[in-house]
Amino acid sequence: MAMEQTKKFISSVDIRARIKAAEKFNEVFEKVVKAVLNCEEPRLVIPKRTLSNTIYDKEKGLLLLGPATFERSFLDVKEARKFMQTLLMAKIIYDALINNEYPTIRDLFYRGKHSIRYRDHKGRVEEENTWDEQKESDSVLRDIEVLVNLLREEMLILSKEKGKVVGDMRIRSGDDVIDLSKMGHGAYAIEPTPDLIEFIDVNAEFVLVVEKDAVFQQLHRAGFWKKYRAILVTSAGQPDRATRRFVRRLNEELKLPVYILTDADPYGWYIYSVFKIGSITLSYESERLATPKAKFLGVSMTDIFGDKNKKPYLSESERRNFIIKAKKTDIKRAQELLNYEWFKTEKWSKEINIFLQKQSKLEIEALTGKGLHFLMDTYIPMKIQTQDFIE
Amino acid sequence: MAMEQTKKFISSVDIRARIKAAEKFNEVFEKVVKAVLNCEEPRLVIPKRTLSNTIYDKEKGLLLLGPATFERSFLDVKEARKFMQTLLMAKIIYDALINNEYPTIRDLFYRGKHSIRYRDHKGRVEEENTWDEQKESDSVLRDIEVLVNLLREEMLILSKEKGKVVGDMRIRSGDDVIDLSKMGHGAYAIEPTPDLIEFIDVNAEFVLVVEKDAVFQQLHRAGFWKKYRAILVTSAGQPDRATRRFVRRLNEELKLPVYILTDADPYGWYIYSVFKIGSITLSYESERLATPKAKFLGVSMTDIFGDKNKKPYLSESERRNFIIKAKKTDIKRAQELLNYEWFKTEKWSKEINIFLQKQSKLEIEALTGKGLHFLMDTYIPMKIQTQDFIE
Repeated sequence: MAMEQTKKFISSVDIRARIKAAEKFNEVFEKVVKAVLNCEEPRLVIPKRTLSNTIYDKEKGLLLLGPATFERSFLDVKEARKFMQTLLMAKIIYDALINNEYPTIRDLFYRGKHSIRYRDHKGRVEEENTWDEQKESDSVLRDIEVLVNLLREEMLILSKEKGKVVGDMRIRSGDDVIDLSKMGHGAYAIEPTPDLIEFIDVNAEFVLVVEKDAVFQQLHRAGFWKKYRAILVTSAGQPDRATRRFVRRLNEELKLPVYILTDADPYGWYIYSVFKIGSITLSYESERLATPKAKFLGVSMTDIFGDKNKKPYLSESERRNFIIKAKKTDIKRAQELLNYEWFKTEKWSKEINIFLQKQSKLEIEALTGKGLHFLMDTYIPMKIQTQDFIE
Repeated sequence: MAMEQTKKFISSVDIRARIKAAEKFNEVFEKVVKAVLNCEEPRLVIPKRTLSNTIYDKEKGLLLLGPATFERSFLDVKEARKFMQTLLMAKIIYDALINNEYPTIRDLFYRGKHSIRYRDHKGRVEEENTWDEQKESDSVLRDIEVLVNLLREEMLILSKEKGKVVGDMRIRSGDDVIDLSKMGHGAYAIEPTPDLIEFIDVNAEFVLVVEKDAVFQQLHRAGFWKKYRAILVTSAGQPDRATRRFVRRLNEELKLPVYILTDADPYGWYIYSVFKIGSITLSYESERLATPKAKFLGVSMTDIFGDKNKKPYLSESERRNFIIKAKKTDIKRAQELLNYEWFKTEKWSKEINIFLQKQSKLEIEALTGKGLHFLMDTYIPMKIQTQDFIE
């Protein structure tokens, strides 16, 4: 009853998405039910999410899942537990779909967590927990994602969401049309299911993604996106899935170039890398979440120290005042990045080597410390105009 | 030129706020200039921000700054450095105000950071840094806030901002009118200067503040605020200044009761405490930022374990599956809270003592694990209806 009552409060977009996902579940798991009814052993064939089955596709510039699969069968003692977990998770998600629930991954963990009582071969009563930690249930969820070929967002699984956007653009989200140029001093907080957003119209030339929310606030407030016809996005630190997917869609569907602005340090480079390539543990999703054409606008080491044919953006005394000494963890992180396939380019080698040599890093705020107008009206436009970015 | 050009891209609300703040600065610092021109020693009389001058006002239920002040004079060797820092910070903020800049506190640190060269009494050249760490410049900023009697937000100093809101309510922010009931599946990200928001109209009976963004997403998506006529807010963890001020204004100006929903653990209680009372280090601001009438809706220990006349919301087996063992840091935190004046009430003593006895905590997600409809259609409405909260 509560469900029926609630239905009128949820969006028609979600109802359609639920039906689509539930149908996909029926399709995949019908085989399991049929096998049981035919007294055959139920088996699941699941794409492998291992590192050995993760391929860096140079052409697409993406981390992708390879063709390898594995079989999970019910009657194998070593696999029975995992098989049970997979079917349990599928059942929880399916129930949530048809009952207008919006679980989070934490919810899924709690929903499934209980002890199963059974008798062993000698008839003694034993107990086993379905799972003990969220790490376990998260891993099973990933299996379901690749098995059913749906991202968790398509199953209406929600999560916290930090990404924000403003710009001259109209979108449809749920049953509303939202004008992202009419957010006042605030911003539009992106929904956790950005595939359900419909782009209505856009009047912009590029997307600027700013790592730091505080810098986003400054650029927004000073009218950066109006003056330079930009869509302004912040990931507020390490980007979450929804922000990554949203940026990818802006690039792919609206053909807008995407520039990423981070601190000049290995942590900033890693944020860029997650936007551009994807993270290794989520390689099967990066085909949808990553933006391989994203450009690293800065702040780069050559912006700070200059280069053969390039004057630095900072004076000697500004460097003295603004630069921060790198920590041991920064150095270690930078050395790790040197091993990543996609950092093995001439420009990135130069960046990382300057960093390792100078052992220095710089925050974006050091540039706004020179004046917000310097960042907004000199640094960013000039970097874009002279194509002084890393692709 | 860039400034004039930019003026057309910023809101008229901000321009008015700048003029107001700049006038206040003129007023306060005119005395300093006059003293110098009259060959008198320049002095500043600043309200003390020490713990001994922080008073818990039982009547108002707020942490307030007492009447004590101190003098900072230029010709005292021990104070000359602090005096210089105070005037330097005032100059930076004033310049930012009249130049349409929007600094952050990190910016202010960078803007002021440099070495001053001077000659000592023997004529030797010496160097001294204005400040070395942001801790120092932040402390000077606080002095300026109490000296000028303006919050940093009123000086157009921005910061990152995590708070979000949805509900049947219209506001004016900057030059835009925003309908908070038309945000689709996303939300409105609150601006860092919520005093500049104008409330136009509201159709709601209460405010629900949810600690966790993921739970906010779920309740929003399931239409909680439509069904129960609520303004739904999340602080996404520890609340920042703007979220606190926004919630306070909803309570004070719109007369809406404010209920706060957190995890059942000392960290959640502390979040509630920051909303309600303010934090000790920012006591001078809590008169504006805190919501003394905010109510702690839950999740409470008696919700989990029941009480003399109260049936618990969790069954024995749900407790077994959902409860998390408290960590040592949780226990320590709880023991500290027992010493806070405003936790010395009968209800809070009971809460904290149950916690210390059971050494157990619970996440809100454990309740959504029982079904989102349980949280939305049973737990929250029943808690409000039976007034089962802590004031």
